[in-house]
Amino acid sequence: MARRRATVVGAGHTRFGVLPDGPRALMRQAVDAAFRSVDRGVDRSRVEEAFLGTLGFSGWQLGNASAALAEEARIGHAPVTRVENACASAGFALRSGVRAIESGARDVVLVVGLEKMTDSPSAHRRYWLGVSGDTEWERLAGLTFAGVYALMASAHMAAHGTPPEALAAVAVKNHANGTKNPNAQFQKVITREQVLAAPRVADPLGLLDCCPVSDGAVALILAGDDMARTLTDTPVAVVGAGAGADALALQERDSLTQLAATRVAAAEAFRHAPFDRTGVQFLEVHDCFTIAELLALEDLGFADPGGAAAMTLEGATALGGRLPVNPDGGLKAKGHPIGASGASQAYEAFVQLRGAAGARQVVGAERALTHNVGGSGASATVTLFERM
Amino acid sequence: MARRRATVVGAGHTRFGVLPDGPRALMRQAVDAAFRSVDRGVDRSRVEEAFLGTLGFSGWQLGNASAALAEEARIGHAPVTRVENACASAGFALRSGVRAIESGARDVVLVVGLEKMTDSPSAHRRYWLGVSGDTEWERLAGLTFAGVYALMASAHMAAHGTPPEALAAVAVKNHANGTKNPNAQFQKVITREQVLAAPRVADPLGLLDCCPVSDGAVALILAGDDMARTLTDTPVAVVGAGAGADALALQERDSLTQLAATRVAAAEAFRHAPFDRTGVQFLEVHDCFTIAELLALEDLGFADPGGAAAMTLEGATALGGRLPVNPDGGLKAKGHPIGASGASQAYEAFVQLRGAAGARQVVGAERALTHNVGGSGASATVTLFERM
Repeated sequence: MARRRATVVGAGHTRFGVLPDGPRALMRQAVDAAFRSVDRGVDRSRVEEAFLGTLGFSGWQLGNASAALAEEARIGHAPVTRVENACASAGFALRSGVRAIESGARDVVLVVGLEKMTDSPSAHRRYWLGVSGDTEWERLAGLTFAGVYALMASAHMAAHGTPPEALAAVAVKNHANGTKNPNAQFQKVITREQVLAAPRVADPLGLLDCCPVSDGAVALILAGDDMARTLTDTPVAVVGAGAGADALALQERDSLTQLAATRVAAAEAFRHAPFDRTGVQFLEVHDCFTIAELLALEDLGFADPGGAAAMTLEGATALGGRLPVNPDGGLKAKGHPIGASGASQAYEAFVQLRGAAGARQVVGAERALTHNVGGSGASATVTLFERM
Repeated sequence: MARRRATVVGAGHTRFGVLPDGPRALMRQAVDAAFRSVDRGVDRSRVEEAFLGTLGFSGWQLGNASAALAEEARIGHAPVTRVENACASAGFALRSGVRAIESGARDVVLVVGLEKMTDSPSAHRRYWLGVSGDTEWERLAGLTFAGVYALMASAHMAAHGTPPEALAAVAVKNHANGTKNPNAQFQKVITREQVLAAPRVADPLGLLDCCPVSDGAVALILAGDDMARTLTDTPVAVVGAGAGADALALQERDSLTQLAATRVAAAEAFRHAPFDRTGVQFLEVHDCFTIAELLALEDLGFADPGGAAAMTLEGATALGGRLPVNPDGGLKAKGHPIGASGASQAYEAFVQLRGAAGARQVVGAERALTHNVGGSGASATVTLFERM
C-alpha cells in the first residue's frame, strides 16, 4: 500500500549564537515563526502532538522541558514528548514526529529543537556536555569530545593519508557558507592558513576545527501528505528516515575511522526511499568537528573510505560544487545548540527545497539528506527530504 | 482498515527499592529477564529499535542513557531513543514503542524504564526531582511535589468533603497489595491509624501518604499483533493509547481538583478502543501520593467528581473488589523509580492479563488500564491492554 508520508509545511529558526533570551523565549520565538511561515496558516488548535529535542534544557537549571514547550507553544492539552539523544536529540525528535504522522495517529505535529548553552558557567557546561560521552573509559580519563574526534582524525590520517588541509578546507567552506546565512553564529570568512595556524585544542584539531557553543531553537510543523497542500503549495516530504546506534566509548567500536551508527541509519533511510544517493542534491551533515564532515561523507556513502578529503579539496562540496555540503554553514559556522541542530538541518532542507534559501540557495534542489549524530557516534539519524 | 496493533510478548522487572546495583546493571537485569520471559524465545538481533524512559539517569551523574541501553541490551546497532517526561517518562516511551509498531516501521521493539535514585545525595536528588516541577512559581517559593499534591488534597477536601480516612485507605490498600508482590519495595501491612498518625510532610499528607524514593528498571518486549503468536501463546495487546498535557504550575490550571492531562489522555485512549470503561477490570494508576489515586479514579472516568473517596472506603478498589486499583501495590508500596513506573504498570498489565500474577491475581482479568503522570499533572498517558 502507499504509505502515508509526513511533510514539512512550516518552519521557524532563531538566530544561533550567544543570545540574550532564555530557553522558553527561544522556543516561543521559533514556534511563532514556524506558525507564521505556513502559507495558508494553521490554527494552533490543529496541532495534535509535539516533540521536543533538547539535551539539558538550560543546563539542568530547569526540568520538564516538554511541559515548558506545551506552555510556550500554546497548543492546549496536546501531549508533548521530550526526546534526548545527546547532540542527535532533534534528529530523534523529528523521527518521532514523522512516525506519529506515518502511523496515521496524527495529522499535524510540532517538532522543536532547543538548547540554551551560554548562560551556564563553563565548568558546569563541560560537565553536562561531558556526560554525553563515555564516563568510565573516556571522561574520567580526561578525554573530551574534541579529544575523541581528534583520535578519529589521527586514525583517519594514518589510514588514508588525509592531509590537515582537507580538515581546514571543511572549516573554510562552512564559514564561507555561513556568511550567506543570516541565522549563522559566525558570518565571517576564514582562510585555510588561519585554520592551520589556530591554537590546538586536541591535535590535529585546532580552535577553528571545532563548532562553537551556541543558543538557539528551531521549530518544524509537520502534516500528513494527504493534507499538506491545504496548508501550502510547496510542502517538503520526508521520504526516508533511518537511525542507528553504536557503543559510546570509542574503544568499544569496530572502527576508529567510520561511524557504524551513521552507516546503519543511511542504509535504513534509503531502503524504501524513492531515490538513491545519486538523486541527492545536497547534504546537511553533523560537522561538530571538521573531521566529522569527512567521516559523514564516507559513512553516508557519498565518498569511498578515505575519499572525502580529495572531494572536499577539489571543491565538490562547496556551494556551486557537484554535491554541496552544509550550505547553511553547518554546525561549524552556523553554530551548534546541541538539541536544536537536528531540527536546524531539517529547516535548511525545507527552505532549500522550496527555493527560499536566498544567497545560499542550491540551484534547483529538489532532494536533500540530513544527518545528525549523538555522543561522538553512539547514535545517528539520517533523513531524506523531497519537494512534493 | 484494521489497524496494526502492538502487543507485549515479554517483560522483565527488577525488584524496586534501595538496591546495590547501578543504573546500567539494573537495565541489564530487566532486559535479560524480559528476553527470558518470551515463551518461545526471541533473538536479540530481532529487536529493531528501543526506547528508554528515564528522568535523570543516575541523577545526571551519567548522560547519553540511550547509548548505555544500546550497550547493556546487546541489540547491536538498533537505534535507541531516550524519552523524558518527568515521572511519565516510561509511559511516553511505551507510547513511542507502540507507535513504532503501529506505523509498520518495526516488528519487534524494546521499551525500558529506569531510575537509579538512592545513590544521589538527598540535596542533589531534591534538586533534580524538583526541577520537574514549575520553577518560577513553585520551586523557587519552596513548594515541593508533596506540597503541590497537598494543595490538591486540600482543595479536594474543601470541594467534596473528602475525609482524611479516604486518603489513608488508599495507602492501606496499596500496602496490603504490596505484600503480595515480590518486587515491591514495601511488603508490609499498615493500618489506617498509622497513616493518620504519621508525621506530616505537607498537611494533609503525612509520611505514609507519600511514595518512596526507589531504584528499579522494567523492560517490555513489544511485537506486532500479526506475529505475536509466533513468540508466545498469550500476547497482551495495546488497544488504546492516549496522552495529554497541561500547564506545569498548579496556578495556571483550570482546576485544583482535576488533572486535565489525565482526562484528555483517557478520552483519547478510549476513542478507538474495542471496549469502554465498563469493560476495564483493573487499573494501574499513578498514586505518587494518596490523593493522586482518588484524582485518577475521577479523571479517568471511573468515579464522579468527589466520588472516589466513597468508592475507596467501601473497598471497591481493593483486590477482590469490583474494580481493583494498583494490585501490584502502586507507586505507594511497590516504589516509584521515576522513569520506570510507567513501564512497571505495563508489566503488571502483562502478567495479570496472562493470569500470572500469583497471590495478587485479579481473577479472570482480560482488560486493564494503566495511567502515568508527569510533573504533578503537566503530562499524562493512559494505555489500554487486552489479552489476545
